[in-house]
Amino acid sequence: MAKKPFRIGMIGCGFMGRAHSNAYCKVANFFDLEYEPILQAACARNEASVKAFAENWGYASIETDWRKLLERDDIDAVDICVPNNLHKEMAIAAAEAGKIILCEKPLAMNTAEGEEMCAAVDKAGVANMVWYNYRRVPAVTLAKQLIDEGRLGRVFHYRANFLQDWTISADLPQGGAALWRLDVAAAGSGVTGDLLAHCIDTAIWLNGPITSVTAMTETFIKERKHQLTGEVQAVGIDDAAALLCRFANGSLGLFESTRYARGHKALYTLEINGENASMQWDLEDLHRLQYFDHADDSIIRGWRNVHVSDGDQPYMGNWWVPGLQIGYEHSFVHAVADFLKGLAAGVPAGPTFRDSLETQKVCDAILKSAQEGVWVDVG
Amino acid sequence: MAKKPFRIGMIGCGFMGRAHSNAYCKVANFFDLEYEPILQAACARNEASVKAFAENWGYASIETDWRKLLERDDIDAVDICVPNNLHKEMAIAAAEAGKIILCEKPLAMNTAEGEEMCAAVDKAGVANMVWYNYRRVPAVTLAKQLIDEGRLGRVFHYRANFLQDWTISADLPQGGAALWRLDVAAAGSGVTGDLLAHCIDTAIWLNGPITSVTAMTETFIKERKHQLTGEVQAVGIDDAAALLCRFANGSLGLFESTRYARGHKALYTLEINGENASMQWDLEDLHRLQYFDHADDSIIRGWRNVHVSDGDQPYMGNWWVPGLQIGYEHSFVHAVADFLKGLAAGVPAGPTFRDSLETQKVCDAILKSAQEGVWVDVG
Amino acid sequence: MAKKPFRIGMIGCGFMGRAHSNAYCKVANFFDLEYEPILQAACARNEASVKAFAENWGYASIETDWRKLLERDDIDAVDICVPNNLHKEMAIAAAEAGKIILCEKPLAMNTAEGEEMCAAVDKAGVANMVWYNYRRVPAVTLAKQLIDEGRLGRVFHYRANFLQDWTISADLPQGGAALWRLDVAAAGSGVTGDLLAHCIDTAIWLNGPITSVTAMTETFIKERKHQLTGEVQAVGIDDAAALLCRFANGSLGLFESTRYARGHKALYTLEINGENASMQWDLEDLHRLQYFDHADDSIIRGWRNVHVSDGDQPYMGNWWVPGLQIGYEHSFVHAVADFLKGLAAGVPAGPTFRDSLETQKVCDAILKSAQEGVWVDVG
Amino acid sequence: MAKKPFRIGMIGCGFMGRAHSNAYCKVANFFDLEYEPILQAACARNEASVKAFAENWGYASIETDWRKLLERDDIDAVDICVPNNLHKEMAIAAAEAGKIILCEKPLAMNTAEGEEMCAAVDKAGVANMVWYNYRRVPAVTLAKQLIDEGRLGRVFHYRANFLQDWTISADLPQGGAALWRLDVAAAGSGVTGDLLAHCIDTAIWLNGPITSVTAMTETFIKERKHQLTGEVQAVGIDDAAALLCRFANGSLGLFESTRYARGHKALYTLEINGENASMQWDLEDLHRLQYFDHADDSIIRGWRNVHVSDGDQPYMGNWWVPGLQIGYEHSFVHAVADFLKGLAAGVPAGPTFRDSLETQKVCDAILKSAQEGVWVDVG
Repeated sequence: MAKKPFRIGMIGCGFMGRAHSNAYCKVANFFDLEYEPILQAACARNEASVKAFAENWGYASIETDWRKLLERDDIDAVDICVPNNLHKEMAIAAAEAGKIILCEKPLAMNTAEGEEMCAAVDKAGVANMVWYNYRRVPAVTLAKQLIDEGRLGRVFHYRANFLQDWTISADLPQGGAALWRLDVAAAGSGVTGDLLAHCIDTAIWLNGPITSVTAMTETFIKERKHQLTGEVQAVGIDDAAALLCRFANGSLGLFESTRYARGHKALYTLEINGENASMQWDLEDLHRLQYFDHADDSIIRGWRNVHVSDGDQPYMGNWWVPGLQIGYEHSFVHAVADFLKGLAAGVPAGPTFRDSLETQKVCDAILKSAQEGVWVDVG
Repeated sequence: MAKKPFRIGMIGCGFMGRAHSNAYCKVANFFDLEYEPILQAACARNEASVKAFAENWGYASIETDWRKLLERDDIDAVDICVPNNLHKEMAIAAAEAGKIILCEKPLAMNTAEGEEMCAAVDKAGVANMVWYNYRRVPAVTLAKQLIDEGRLGRVFHYRANFLQDWTISADLPQGGAALWRLDVAAAGSGVTGDLLAHCIDTAIWLNGPITSVTAMTETFIKERKHQLTGEVQAVGIDDAAALLCRFANGSLGLFESTRYARGHKALYTLEINGENASMQWDLEDLHRLQYFDHADDSIIRGWRNVHVSDGDQPYMGNWWVPGLQIGYEHSFVHAVADFLKGLAAGVPAGPTFRDSLETQKVCDAILKSAQEGVWVDVG
Repeated sequence: MAKKPFRIGMIGCGFMGRAHSNAYCKVANFFDLEYEPILQAACARNEASVKAFAENWGYASIETDWRKLLERDDIDAVDICVPNNLHKEMAIAAAEAGKIILCEKPLAMNTAEGEEMCAAVDKAGVANMVWYNYRRVPAVTLAKQLIDEGRLGRVFHYRANFLQDWTISADLPQGGAALWRLDVAAAGSGVTGDLLAHCIDTAIWLNGPITSVTAMTETFIKERKHQLTGEVQAVGIDDAAALLCRFANGSLGLFESTRYARGHKALYTLEINGENASMQWDLEDLHRLQYFDHADDSIIRGWRNVHVSDGDQPYMGNWWVPGLQIGYEHSFVHAVADFLKGLAAGVPAGPTFRDSLETQKVCDAILKSAQEGVWVDVG
Repeated sequence: MAKKPFRIGMIGCGFMGRAHSNAYCKVANFFDLEYEPILQAACARNEASVKAFAENWGYASIETDWRKLLERDDIDAVDICVPNNLHKEMAIAAAEAGKIILCEKPLAMNTAEGEEMCAAVDKAGVANMVWYNYRRVPAVTLAKQLIDEGRLGRVFHYRANFLQDWTISADLPQGGAALWRLDVAAAGSGVTGDLLAHCIDTAIWLNGPITSVTAMTETFIKERKHQLTGEVQAVGIDDAAALLCRFANGSLGLFESTRYARGHKALYTLEINGENASMQWDLEDLHRLQYFDHADDSIIRGWRNVHVSDGDQPYMGNWWVPGLQIGYEHSFVHAVADFLKGLAAGVPAGPTFRDSLETQKVCDAILKSAQEGVWVDVG
C-alpha cells in the first residue's frame, strides 16, 4: 500500500535540525507507518548554511525566509528548530497557515507566549507536538508503563537532576549560532528552560501536576564576551537552578540543574519512590532502568538493573536483538513514529503544545520563586 | 610505657551504647594510644537490661541512676547514649561534675538547649565531643583531606541525601525503647535531627557554614499507635525533609532525607562539585570515593572509583591490607582514637559541642522554614 | 565536489543485511567522504522477502540469484550477509568478478576455506573487509589508541567473555532462516565462530598474535527439533567454549563464551592488564571504558569510568554532544566510513580477509584442542 | 549460665594471627555462645614479637617453642597461623596432643601432607577447621543458602577470579616475615595456594566436586632478591595461574588468579549461572550479592543488586541495622561463632581438614597440569 506523504518544512539547521532530520530519514526503515516523511524544504537565513544542510540530509528545496515556507502548498508540517525567542511568532503564523507544527522545547519564552501559541493551534485545529524527546527513551517509556500499571502504589518522592559542566570556563563567550542558549535574549532563561524543562516534562508525565514550588537560581560567571559583538556583557541566564515542590498526588519533589557540575556531561537522572516499588533512570546510561520491587522475597530483594533492550520492552522490537543498544537519536525517531501513528489514528501524540504549557508554567514559577524568595503556586 | 586510664561511664544501653562500647573495646587493639579506655560503669534505668549489657561488654559495674554515676570519682568521662530529650540535663550535670563528655548526636532538642550545653562545658572546661561518626569513615575523611589540599578550586555545588524506607508501614508503632526516634517528645524532630543532622555536620565540615535555607517537611502517616500506651496518637515528627541552601563560600546546597524512599536502607550520599574536581560518596558502599579530576587527559577523563583501603589512606594503615574492607562500626573506633589522641595532645578532636551547635542551628532553620514557608537565615 | 558512487550489491536480507543497509544509508549524513554508498541491488533467494527488503531500505533493484548479481556492471561491491557455509563460494566468485567484498564474520567455516578466500582476493586484487564491527565501538577504538600510545607498558593479562542466555530452553528449534546459527551445517560451529570470533578479533587487534591454546567446549542440550524439517536431530554446535592461551607478547589469555549464562543478553566484556595501566570494556554499556592508571596519585587512584562520548574521542565528533550516546548500529556506520576512507586513500581498512584468517586459525585451534584435550599451536 | 572456656593457644603473630585474635575477642560481644574464647597463650619464635603481640591482644601468657605450648594442660585448642611449610608438623603434633586445631589455609604444602594431617586428626578424634573465611562473608553464605534452596536449577557455568596487583614491581624482595608468600620453600606455591585455594574452596562448597582440570601458570618476574639473605634468587612460585575445569554436576568452570592485574587489590569475584537463576559476588564490595531470577516478569527482569545487610540475611541480625556494613574481619568472627556452635552441638563446622583436602587435590592438579600441559583428573 502506498504511504501517505508527510512533507516537512524544517526551520533551522543547527543541532536540533540535524537530530530531527535524522529521525525523519530513519523512521520508515524501522517502523511500519501509514505516513512517510518527505524532506520537502529546509529553511534558514544563511543561504550557504541551509544549502549545505539540505544537501547533507536530502531536502528537496531550500528557503531563506520562513514566511515563504509557510506560504508553500507542498508543505504539510513545519518543524521549528530555532532559538526560543522565535518560537511564538513562527508557530502562530504556521498555525494560521494551517500547517502541522512540531516545535522544539521549551514551548516558548514564558507562559504568556505559550498561551498565545496554544490558542493559535487550537483555533486552527492543527496537530502539534513539542520535542520533549526523553519521554521516548525506552527505559523512560517503560517507567511510564509500570506506573500506569499501578506498580508503585502511593508515591512519596520524585527527584530529578540534569547536571552538566560545559560552561565552567569564564572564557566561553555567550550568544551566536552555537551559544545562543547562554544569551538570555534568545533563550529566555538558562538551565531552567534548557534542562529543567526536560525534567519537569517527564515528571508531570510520570507523576502528575506540580502545584507549588520554591526555588533558587544562581549565575556563577557574571559577565561573558558576546560571540557576535565581542563586547563583555552581563550574563542574564541562570547557570544553576534548584527547587523543592509539591505534586498534586501528595508526593514531594526535588529538582536541580546546572552547567557547573564538574564531571557530568549530560547527567539527567530521575527517581521515583512509591509505597510498593521505586525506579531510577540516568541519561548517561540510557538503557538502564533501575527497578526495586518490595514484593520480592526479602532476602534477595535489591534494585534490579534492567537492561531495556528486549523485544517486549518499549520500541525495542523495532531495532536489533536483546542486549544491543540504541542511542540518543533514537528518542527522536520514536517521537516521529508516535506522532505519525497518532496522526493516522486521529489522536495526536503528546506532548502537545497544551501539555507543554504546563511545563512552561512550572518554569515560570521557578524563576519567579527564585527572584522573590517565596513559594509560588503553579498556574 | 603504661597507658593512662580513660574510665568511661556509659549512660544508655541501646543501639548506640552498643556501637560505642564496641569502639572502646577495639580501639587499643588497632591504635597505639596514650590513653586506654576502661569500661568502668554502665548506667540505665532498667536494672536487668543494664546488667545484661554490662556483662556482655565487660563493664566493671552498673548504675541505675545517672546522677549517681556522675558522683563517682572513678569515672573520667561519660558517654550519653539516650534519647535526645535527655541530652541537655545530663550533659550540663556532667559538665558541672567535671566529667569529659561524649554525647550522641544530635547535640540537643534545639539550638536553645545546645547553647546551654555549650555554655556548661565551656564554663567547666571539660573536653567534649558529639558522635557524628560519618566524618570518620575513611572515604569521607579522605574527601576532607583532598578539599584541604585545595584540589577542588571554587566550589559550585554540594548535595546530600539520607534515604531510608523503614517506616513506610502504617502498622509500625511510635515510641518506646526501640522506636523513640518516631516520638517527637523524645526525639524533637524526625528525619531532620536523625538523618539530615548527619548530612549537615559533614557538609559544614567539608564545605563551610550554611547561611540560609528554605525547606519543606512532610508527615506521610499522620497517626500511629504508641508502643507503650497502645493509644493511637498524632505523629509529631517529620517523615521527610528537604531543603535548598546557600553556603558562605557561594556554593548552592541541596539536601533531602526521608524514611519513605522504598529501596534504600541507609543511603547517605554526598557530592561536591568544584571548578577543578568533584567527589561523591555513599554510605551503602562506604569504601568507595568517586573522584573526578578535570586535569586528567581529556580522552581518558572519568570518575575514578577509588577503593579507600590502602595504607596511605585515612585510618586504613591501622587495619588490614589493601582491598579488604572495614565497616560501619569502625567509624566509632576512629572517633575514639582521634578523641583520645586529641586528649593526650591537649587539642580536643571535633566535632565539639560548639561545632555541633552550628548543625543544630541549621536544623532549627530547616524546621522553621518548613513551618513558615520562607527562607530563614541561619544563626 | 561530486561524490564518487560506491554501488552496493547486498546478498542476504536478514539481521546483518539490515544492520549493514542502515549503515550505508546513514554514513553520508554524518561523515564527509569521497565515496557515496548507493544501494544498487539486494539479492536473496526468496523473491517476496528480497522485494520487501529492497523497498524498505531503498535498494534500486533486486536479484534472486547471486551469480547474476556478480555479473552486473553496475555493482562495485558485494556485501555477503548469508550463513557461514556460503561465504567461500560467493567470495571467491565475487573476487573473480572483480568486486570489492565486504563479508560478514566469521570469514569462513574453517581455516582451509579462509585460505582459499584470501588467495582469491589477493589474486584479484580487490579490496576486502570482514565485518568485525566491535573494533569500531568508540570505547574499543579508544582502547586501541591508548595501547598504541604505549600507555600500558608490558602486558600481563588479557581476558574476554561473550555471554548470552538465549538458547537455554530445550524447546528452541535449530536451523532455518532465523536460527541457522544453531545448525552446525550452516554455521560450522556454535559460540566459537559466532561469539568467540569477535573476542579473538579484538584481542589480536589489541594485544597481538595468540600462539597456543587449550580449550573445552560443551553442548548442553544434545538434541533439538530442526526448524525446517521438524525432525529431532543431534545438536552439532558448541553451546559453550572456554580457553586458556598464550600471546606472542608473553601475556596470558582467558576467553569464554556461552549461550547458557542466565542473566546476560550480549555481555561481551574485555580486560587487559598492563604494567602501567589496565582497561575494561563491556558491550552492554558500550560507552564506558574503564581505565586504571597506576601513575595517578596513590590516594586517589581508581578505575576511571570514562564515558566515551566527547568530540575528541574516536568517532564521537561526528555525532551529537558530550554525554549523548550512540548504539550498536553505529559500529557498522564507522566500519563503512573507515572502509570508504581507506578506499579513497588506497589503504584498505581492516580487518581484511587476511587479518580475519588469523582469527579463524585460533577458532580452529580451539575446536581442535577441545576435541583432543591437548594444547594446540596456532597457525 | 556460666560459659564454657575455650582456651586458645595461638601459634604465629603475623597478619592472620591478628585477624584471628580479633575474632576471638569480638565474638562473645555479638554472638550468644556456650563456649567463651579465652586467649590463653601466644606462641612465636621471636620473644619480643610475641610479647608485644600478647600484650596487644590480651593473651595471658607466651611461649617461644610451639612444642611446649602443646604440652600445656590449660590449652584446649591451637590456632596454626604460620607459613604453609610448618602446618603439617604442627598439626600432627597437636592432634597427638589431643588439641582441637584451627589451621590457616591452605591446609598443607600438597595433598600428600594433607592426607597425613587428616589421618592424624581422624585418629586423635579432635575437632578441626581450616580458615577458609570467605565462606562466611554474609553475601557468600546467602549464595550457598539460595543454592541449597534449589533456586538455580541445573548449573551450566561457574567462574571465579582472584586478582591482585601488589607484586608487579621487580624491586619487591621475596621471603622473610612479611613476604614468605613469595618464597616457594615456605609457601609451596604462589597464587595457586594463596588465592586460587580460596576460589576452589568456595566453588566446591557451592557447586560440588571438580573432576578434571587443565591449567597454565606463569612467573613473570624470574628473579628476586631474598629478604633475609639479600641474594638474588630464582622465583619459584607461580605469579599467575588459570584453569578450565569440569564439575561433577556437568557444569564448566573457569578460574584465574594473579598478582599482576594492575588496578585490582583483592578482587575475588565469583559467578554461577543456573537454568533459573544466576549470582555474582565480589570481595571488594563484599556486601553486594548480584542475583538474577529468570522467573521475574520479563519487562522488569534484571540483576538484583542485593545489599546483604538485613537481619534476615546470614549473620547480619547479630550486627547493626539494615544498610550498615561489616568488613573483612567479620568473616573470621563468623567462623569462630560457627565453630563454637558446632563444638557445643557435637557437629564440627566446616571446612574441616578433610573438606580442605579436596581443595588441596585440585591445587595439586592445577600445578601438575600447568607443568605437563595436559588435562589432569582430580583426586
